[in-house]
Amino acid sequence: MPNVENVLRDIDDNFEVSVRKLLELISIPSVSNEIPGEPGILRAAHWLKSELSAIGLSAEIIQTNGHPVVLASSPAGSMIERPRLLFYGHYDVQPVGDLKQWKHSPFEPCVIEEEDGAHRFYGRGASDSKSQLWTFIEALRAWKSIECSFPADIVVMLEGEEESGSASLPAFIEAHRHDLQCDVAFICDAEMWSPTQPAITTRLKGLVHERVTILAPNPDLHSGHYGAVAANPIRILSNILTDIHDKAGRVRIEGFYDGVREIPDNLRQRWRGLEQDADQFEVNLSGGITEEGYTRLEAMWARPTVDMNGITGGNQGPGGRSVLPGSATARLSFRLVDAQEPGKIRAGFRAYVESKLPKGCTVEFEGDGGSPAVVLSHDSPFVAAAAHGLAREWETPAILRGTGGAIPLVHQLSEVLGVECVVIGFILPGDAIHAPDEHYDTRRLRKGVRSWVRIFEEIQLRIAG
Amino acid sequence: MPNVENVLRDIDDNFEVSVRKLLELISIPSVSNEIPGEPGILRAAHWLKSELSAIGLSAEIIQTNGHPVVLASSPAGSMIERPRLLFYGHYDVQPVGDLKQWKHSPFEPCVIEEEDGAHRFYGRGASDSKSQLWTFIEALRAWKSIECSFPADIVVMLEGEEESGSASLPAFIEAHRHDLQCDVAFICDAEMWSPTQPAITTRLKGLVHERVTILAPNPDLHSGHYGAVAANPIRILSNILTDIHDKAGRVRIEGFYDGVREIPDNLRQRWRGLEQDADQFEVNLSGGITEEGYTRLEAMWARPTVDMNGITGGNQGPGGRSVLPGSATARLSFRLVDAQEPGKIRAGFRAYVESKLPKGCTVEFEGDGGSPAVVLSHDSPFVAAAAHGLAREWETPAILRGTGGAIPLVHQLSEVLGVECVVIGFILPGDAIHAPDEHYDTRRLRKGVRSWVRIFEEIQLRIAG
Repeated sequence: MPNVENVLRDIDDNFEVSVRKLLELISIPSVSNEIPGEPGILRAAHWLKSELSAIGLSAEIIQTNGHPVVLASSPAGSMIERPRLLFYGHYDVQPVGDLKQWKHSPFEPCVIEEEDGAHRFYGRGASDSKSQLWTFIEALRAWKSIECSFPADIVVMLEGEEESGSASLPAFIEAHRHDLQCDVAFICDAEMWSPTQPAITTRLKGLVHERVTILAPNPDLHSGHYGAVAANPIRILSNILTDIHDKAGRVRIEGFYDGVREIPDNLRQRWRGLEQDADQFEVNLSGGITEEGYTRLEAMWARPTVDMNGITGGNQGPGGRSVLPGSATARLSFRLVDAQEPGKIRAGFRAYVESKLPKGCTVEFEGDGGSPAVVLSHDSPFVAAAAHGLAREWETPAILRGTGGAIPLVHQLSEVLGVECVVIGFILPGDAIHAPDEHYDTRRLRKGVRSWVRIFEEIQLRIAG
Repeated sequence: MPNVENVLRDIDDNFEVSVRKLLELISIPSVSNEIPGEPGILRAAHWLKSELSAIGLSAEIIQTNGHPVVLASSPAGSMIERPRLLFYGHYDVQPVGDLKQWKHSPFEPCVIEEEDGAHRFYGRGASDSKSQLWTFIEALRAWKSIECSFPADIVVMLEGEEESGSASLPAFIEAHRHDLQCDVAFICDAEMWSPTQPAITTRLKGLVHERVTILAPNPDLHSGHYGAVAANPIRILSNILTDIHDKAGRVRIEGFYDGVREIPDNLRQRWRGLEQDADQFEVNLSGGITEEGYTRLEAMWARPTVDMNGITGGNQGPGGRSVLPGSATARLSFRLVDAQEPGKIRAGFRAYVESKLPKGCTVEFEGDGGSPAVVLSHDSPFVAAAAHGLAREWETPAILRGTGGAIPLVHQLSEVLGVECVVIGFILPGDAIHAPDEHYDTRRLRKGVRSWVRIFEEIQLRIAG
């Protein structure tokens, strides 16, 4: 039997070194959706390949049509039949947006002891998702170092374009079907329930990104001369965005709710029990519009949404400028549930915009692909092992939860390859994910690493044993 | 009697030199509403001072709280009682906006012979308003050079912040009441009726610029997690902008129409006669919304408007980014008519926004000042002299027209100092004013210069004589 206490002690003893390495990874600007082939992406991939090799995995960088995947596996050829576990993380990060909004430099992380006693490090990717992938890499390292073998057959897959929609993932999975076969895929890119309570995410929304530009028949005009009579793309775009929702917060795009199922009563019942203490609501939700007839958790986990992520048009400068702009652009995303189809959602939105377009104006759309929603198992042996392992480390039960976030891979693995996925993560809404001053704290990092060791132990007891 | 033909011939003979000088002025980037004290502003002021001095005016650069005014006058002490004429122009220009939209570099003008046979020069300020002020400077130069004296007592006033709202103009006018006293002020910052038909502008709208920023209670959030429940400033701002107008295109801001008078029947009659051949409609107006019950010219010249000049929020980058932005900003301008008061319009808009603001969100406004509308004389002796002079040069009558544009100075001079203003200009809607590839053509420049000589002659005949 493995000596799990020794493995946990090794994690604690090695913790400073481990954090230092993680900060090195965070300092690499692996932004995925700016310039393709951005050097940060490649540097991060090489850095990870070298770490995975160092702990005894056979690692390689695999080119795709987009950013490369780092794929690693434990040595083959063991005579003993063991479960094969896949670990997924992503090493790419969101753009930093407006640098002026960051108090801490996004790619120069260091650990800061803060007034509340926590030790935090700040940086783009600090929580989403470099700390996350680091939890299982460090857990595997420690286990291997104490036990001289891995706890099971291991595959590690680290993606480089999760934050830009995982466009080349389907082709990659198709091409590597064999390498990716496994008994369970642990997808480490999700939230806890609260800083002290772990969670397993069993529902993920789908995602479609779309950009729409309204063009007037003229380029920029003098707004004094023509404001009273000529098309104003900002006004047209505002009207289009406004009319997407009715007064009850429902989406008016034709066919939008095709494939959406009502939330089962037992789930509603269970979620209503969670509604009060959700750490999800650490953020201030006043001013927000929740679809009528649904609680906040129901809307977040099981209702489809249209979100406006960006808008741009006309004068962007500091002073007043009397311009009637020639165009205005909005960036939207659609979060899908149940059987909503990304292609149909995109087509429905485009038809909606075209139906609202004034004569003489034109529209340009940009966007393709997207991922459907996924509902995962609540009660497989791997979910049970994960739930028990998490409960042991955090000394409180793991919540089975949903999320509004999307992980395109989960759909691919579960629907296309038939692999069971268990989605676990250790980040929190308060970590400023996708926002300025994204951060993470060392306590959760340490307990996240330890959680995997507990889960390995449960798997050995329940499944391999 | 002056030998007007000789003056006109001197203009024609000197034309190449004159264009070369004008291009020099256009090449100075005197953008007024970016960084205060931008070096281009000062360079342009010094350049103009030197030109005005060279033709025999006594010129100086006068500091204000904003950008300096170049003020010049003809030598005092003539024994003969002559009318005193003020010429106004502005040497500042609009920002260039997105440089990628320019085919021609905005500050490197040169004359291009184009396929339609016209000779055009491109650049920011080419039409609005460096060519304009150049018409009267060159006309004064030629007259003085042939006649050895100016055609009347002359004051030239060149402003440096017209494009940013003329904030320091009231104080300047107050401080220089005496210098600015005159029998008539020719305001050279307006449009012709068509490339072949001149115009005198007798109605100008007022102008108020305003910036509004909607702030959610949180900074940027992950839109997947919170899109369903948290405030989205882009959505809120879109709703606010949409609700400004009702279905008839009327503004719903309380008190907005206070002080607006119905258009007199005789004016409506006259304007309807102009409606068909207006060069104003060279631009494509399809998709535009004209207030119900008004023709296009009526709306442009005599109905107040709210125009959206810019909008910014959330993701501005090339790729998709799942952000629920912490704020969104719109830039608006209000074009006023009749007795609408700038302060009340601004206050009414702010109250309107606040009334639509969801609980928990906040709003920031930026903007002050503004100018009311002005209606000028149709039938004074100076208007008659100008109309006759223009008609002689262009061989067709001058149209008495309105404009949606604002010239804050006109209000100041006419209402505060009691000076008669006559607004004349030689630019056209097709000149891409305030837009990329702003341009002007040499034929209109030459005839613009010559127009002033004709007007001087008429004044001498009708008023001085």
